[in-house]
Amino acid sequence: MTGTETEPELKQLYREFDRAGLVPLWTEIGNIMPQTPQSAARPHVWQWSDLYPLAERAGELVPVGRGGERRAIALANPGLDGKPFATPNLWAAVQYLGVGEVAPAHRHAQGAFRFIVEGEGVWTVVNGDPVAMRPGDLLLTPSMNWHGHHHVGDAPMVWLDGLDIPLVHQLDAGFFEFGEDGVSEKATPERSRSEKLWGHAGLRPIWAEETPNSPLMAYRWSDTDDALEQQLELERDGFATVIGPGHAGIRFTNPTNGRDALTTLRTEMHRLAPGATSATVRTVGSSVWQAFRGSGTAYLDGQATDLDSGDLVAVPSWCPLRIEAHTRMDLFTFSDAPVYEALNLDRRHVTPNPNDR
Amino acid sequence: MTGTETEPELKQLYREFDRAGLVPLWTEIGNIMPQTPQSAARPHVWQWSDLYPLAERAGELVPVGRGGERRAIALANPGLDGKPFATPNLWAAVQYLGVGEVAPAHRHAQGAFRFIVEGEGVWTVVNGDPVAMRPGDLLLTPSMNWHGHHHVGDAPMVWLDGLDIPLVHQLDAGFFEFGEDGVSEKATPERSRSEKLWGHAGLRPIWAEETPNSPLMAYRWSDTDDALEQQLELERDGFATVIGPGHAGIRFTNPTNGRDALTTLRTEMHRLAPGATSATVRTVGSSVWQAFRGSGTAYLDGQATDLDSGDLVAVPSWCPLRIEAHTRMDLFTFSDAPVYEALNLDRRHVTPNPNDR
Amino acid sequence: MTGTETEPELKQLYREFDRAGLVPLWTEIGNIMPQTPQSAARPHVWQWSDLYPLAERAGELVPVGRGGERRAIALANPGLDGKPFATPNLWAAVQYLGVGEVAPAHRHAQGAFRFIVEGEGVWTVVNGDPVAMRPGDLLLTPSMNWHGHHHVGDAPMVWLDGLDIPLVHQLDAGFFEFGEDGVSEKATPERSRSEKLWGHAGLRPIWAEETPNSPLMAYRWSDTDDALEQQLELERDGFATVIGPGHAGIRFTNPTNGRDALTTLRTEMHRLAPGATSATVRTVGSSVWQAFRGSGTAYLDGQATDLDSGDLVAVPSWCPLRIEAHTRMDLFTFSDAPVYEALNLDRRHVTPNPNDR
Amino acid sequence: MTGTETEPELKQLYREFDRAGLVPLWTEIGNIMPQTPQSAARPHVWQWSDLYPLAERAGELVPVGRGGERRAIALANPGLDGKPFATPNLWAAVQYLGVGEVAPAHRHAQGAFRFIVEGEGVWTVVNGDPVAMRPGDLLLTPSMNWHGHHHVGDAPMVWLDGLDIPLVHQLDAGFFEFGEDGVSEKATPERSRSEKLWGHAGLRPIWAEETPNSPLMAYRWSDTDDALEQQLELERDGFATVIGPGHAGIRFTNPTNGRDALTTLRTEMHRLAPGATSATVRTVGSSVWQAFRGSGTAYLDGQATDLDSGDLVAVPSWCPLRIEAHTRMDLFTFSDAPVYEALNLDRRHVTPNPNDR
Repeated sequence: MTGTETEPELKQLYREFDRAGLVPLWTEIGNIMPQTPQSAARPHVWQWSDLYPLAERAGELVPVGRGGERRAIALANPGLDGKPFATPNLWAAVQYLGVGEVAPAHRHAQGAFRFIVEGEGVWTVVNGDPVAMRPGDLLLTPSMNWHGHHHVGDAPMVWLDGLDIPLVHQLDAGFFEFGEDGVSEKATPERSRSEKLWGHAGLRPIWAEETPNSPLMAYRWSDTDDALEQQLELERDGFATVIGPGHAGIRFTNPTNGRDALTTLRTEMHRLAPGATSATVRTVGSSVWQAFRGSGTAYLDGQATDLDSGDLVAVPSWCPLRIEAHTRMDLFTFSDAPVYEALNLDRRHVTPNPNDR
Repeated sequence: MTGTETEPELKQLYREFDRAGLVPLWTEIGNIMPQTPQSAARPHVWQWSDLYPLAERAGELVPVGRGGERRAIALANPGLDGKPFATPNLWAAVQYLGVGEVAPAHRHAQGAFRFIVEGEGVWTVVNGDPVAMRPGDLLLTPSMNWHGHHHVGDAPMVWLDGLDIPLVHQLDAGFFEFGEDGVSEKATPERSRSEKLWGHAGLRPIWAEETPNSPLMAYRWSDTDDALEQQLELERDGFATVIGPGHAGIRFTNPTNGRDALTTLRTEMHRLAPGATSATVRTVGSSVWQAFRGSGTAYLDGQATDLDSGDLVAVPSWCPLRIEAHTRMDLFTFSDAPVYEALNLDRRHVTPNPNDR
Repeated sequence: MTGTETEPELKQLYREFDRAGLVPLWTEIGNIMPQTPQSAARPHVWQWSDLYPLAERAGELVPVGRGGERRAIALANPGLDGKPFATPNLWAAVQYLGVGEVAPAHRHAQGAFRFIVEGEGVWTVVNGDPVAMRPGDLLLTPSMNWHGHHHVGDAPMVWLDGLDIPLVHQLDAGFFEFGEDGVSEKATPERSRSEKLWGHAGLRPIWAEETPNSPLMAYRWSDTDDALEQQLELERDGFATVIGPGHAGIRFTNPTNGRDALTTLRTEMHRLAPGATSATVRTVGSSVWQAFRGSGTAYLDGQATDLDSGDLVAVPSWCPLRIEAHTRMDLFTFSDAPVYEALNLDRRHVTPNPNDR
Repeated sequence: MTGTETEPELKQLYREFDRAGLVPLWTEIGNIMPQTPQSAARPHVWQWSDLYPLAERAGELVPVGRGGERRAIALANPGLDGKPFATPNLWAAVQYLGVGEVAPAHRHAQGAFRFIVEGEGVWTVVNGDPVAMRPGDLLLTPSMNWHGHHHVGDAPMVWLDGLDIPLVHQLDAGFFEFGEDGVSEKATPERSRSEKLWGHAGLRPIWAEETPNSPLMAYRWSDTDDALEQQLELERDGFATVIGPGHAGIRFTNPTNGRDALTTLRTEMHRLAPGATSATVRTVGSSVWQAFRGSGTAYLDGQATDLDSGDLVAVPSWCPLRIEAHTRMDLFTFSDAPVYEALNLDRRHVTPNPNDR
């Protein structure tokens, strides 16, 4: 916007801007107002075969306890300057807990869930309610709920932690409180109290009010598995019950209002029939995907990368994603979609597969 | 408001009002604007031991088919001039279907459900989806859903139909369409398609949108029973999981939004522990209660009446109701509460039991 | 549905039904579940030239005071058995207040408004806040707000009262409380407190919460008139700012949530340019229309009837309505539409005018 | 959490974490999960007496046109590394437009408003609708609305631009499109079309639907001023119509739903009576305040700073703010509060003034 003769005055003006705590828009607009989202985050894959042994090593070397709070190892997106953020809004970590160990109780404004790829024997105690952790389960610890974990099994356990830590950090909205150092509630029931009260489709305790986050703390694999399988079976019977051909999916929701289970995080499980391919989707907002069972190929902005059980993928805002299943493939995913929908900033572009009917 | 000398002129004025299609407020206000609700409807009990044989007799004498549509016998509140209305807004009927009979398909603006006290062998086909009917189940046929019934069992079946017929009649909002004369979809699956898609607590097909009425067409007794039992067990363990001492209850809800399963009707199941007594509640709006299992005493505006399995009670607006269980007692109830809540006309007064802690 | 040989047994069965408080569906279904709404109410017109002198006569003969409460003369739809109901849900009355008279304070669950055709000098005092009444104004007294009126002008005043009395009566939801016999707050400010706080487009006191009914008690004619005129002017400039050609309209809304000003009643003002004709609309739910200024013809189910200033029309559910303006014509209307929308029972059919572009 | 003997292995482990794109939680938790919000942003004041001359200098040296788009000079919070962000979510800039100049049309996902401290003669054209800019007015250009500005007055004009640029940048949700280079719609009406349609309290065009952002593009000072004055007058008359003693305030809202005028930004105007003091408030989420008229002292985390007309203050998340008025003082403020409320992350702590009644 500027001609050459004014350059010395301009430089002087910019110096004065700087002294006055000012920055002109016209030199910055390209970076801060791009024509389409230009995320600093990069599409990236972390392989379970790398993550698991490192988590085991941490289990040997790093005690778990008050201060560090959790033996959680976070995915650090290569575009985000070494920060422990899988995407600009999403935290994803593998957490390791050895036999007999206890992760001390705390609570925080950040919303959290755990998704279990393998192992068992840990109970997470949420506001005094012990919740078993088993493969395929999704467990919630919503914002400001007290929670600690303890391990009564006979082999170490590793799982995925998902949180909105980067979002809450950027929003300067974090509150954190320490609870008891151990976990006093040592019962290990099959079903948590939250499941006893809320684990019935469409049935709500009469006294219950709507809550922003789900009061159901565990979504069990057997249920998820059945829901996915029914969608594919009904598709085979000719009903329009799937996202796309051979592509089933469920969203984990808050039974008090039918919305996302957590206010800031969307959580879903997808199933692709063997050989099925998802549509190519680009979405404003980011996501993390974890292959739960089966194998396939993810196409991230056109780049192919193979996925096996446990592998994790970070998908930045507006990056096209397509997944092709070699075997029957189950994928867990979480995203920050509720944030964009709440602010009217959501946008989505879908390219169907050319060979779909 | 009037002195005697003006009486002839006043009479003349009232005649002219009448000719002009006018009515003064001041002579009517006491009736149309009472200080508290004065329902024309009366608290009333219908006994299953009366209803059942009459339904059987109708089964012998009255064919079911197009025109009459259903062999349904409606509760007619003694205060409502012989109209087939249990309360001013609620329809409750016993429907009887013989072995091999078919109730032809139709649809209507009125929302409907069926609650099964005993028997089995009938499938209701809702928009082409066959839904089994079994004791303790609640089945929905929401507004404008096609539905017919057919009986493949070996003994006649009787159930409770609940609808908003009087409300929709008063609102002049009724639409009705005839469908096929028989029921073409004769499959008798254990689980309907709606259950396969929606019968998982907190799991929602990703492609699904919010709908005003529930997309889940059947709430099964095993689930309801478990939900009630868990509330009472947790109460015994010291948790505040009940409506009142020994009084559990669940509401049937629409999983897409957590609200009532039907837009105009609230549906609930209550369980009282042996010897337990509900609080005395008066509510704006009316309800119908059906004893499902067990026995007890209902106090309607202080009047005691014994209840056994299948007995039905109409509770008018603002009539105090208390229920005392002799045995463990399960009660199904439906009401027009969503209407009042939507219009900001709901009001409720609760008198706790004096001997409650 | 019945053959002749069973007739004696059938008659016997019906007698037993009757004794047991039962009514069969199959003999009643045609009446209670019609294929389209068959309102008992009839389309009807009341002329101002009849109403006004009768109201004056009532002013001479009937004192206003505690007990009768208001000198209000209600439109009684000829189809509704002499009940003082303009339609099954709507109350419409002309209220007459003489110079110096006071209508004593009361409050009730029924929602109310006043619309002023002519005259001035009355203040309605709503929860202690005096609100001036002037031609073209809409004034609210929402459910459970205390209100009384007093007349400080120099000529009697007549206005339209609209309430949901029939609806609340049918719903058995009425509560009524008497207040002070006079009106203690005798101030006669130009602007009420509610207007001072809420009468600014899009501006909301920071401390205010959402309320079910509007906190703004008066919608002034000058504003309404300007809003209507702007729509027609912009239409002439080529913008799509009208309901139909030459047909402007505004809805009175609750500024705290943008919804109808009252929870049970929709209130609107329409303006037709000279010679303009509205589309033919049939709606589930009923309405009352009052010609405010100008003249035209209303077509009710095809029947033409002329309308002049002050004339009132009752439109039953599903009755087609079209209005043709001879002069520029302003029409106030109120309806029970929010009830149907809240219950998912709303339905609407529009036939555009054949000569519209 | 670690003892010394494992240090070499630990270092080795951390190197392997780094290679694998991983970061442990336990070394980072203090920074990323603080006990209360620890914003990098700092409370800061920019004085109008510094801003205005620099804007004028920019007016001489920097042309306005396509590419740089706007001659806007942004407040750069001293804690945010030189980025042009007033707070982590909020953009605030002074924009300067010379006589006869045109800021070319564009649109973007970012929501924007302008608040005018002084000057006149510019019309902003929003989706083809010319909107006059005058002192005290708030003008909106919501997300994805086309807008350009042109100046037909006789003296340069400077105003405040507020946007959610940092938020949308962090969310990677930005879309941007260039429009025409000039502004083709050169009409300069007193009232915009949006004001003609929406500028009437509580009146809504019947055909209008709810929209996420306000359809009213201008909130005029005369209205705002009157609303504030009425609150203080009613307070003097003994009514509870203010935020606190001598402290009035209005929020700019979307008339279609009563919520904030923009989905991501809260906009408000406050008025303090001479000598009045606001309560001390700390809020999760940040805000910017601009003294519009009058003078006073702001206490930011206890630090006093004087404010005169045009001065701007950035308030980071959880920083306590109190304002003391020397004269009658009007303050415009905007914040990211809707973001926190939508995500259930809002929290607020108020310390009343000790000398308040």
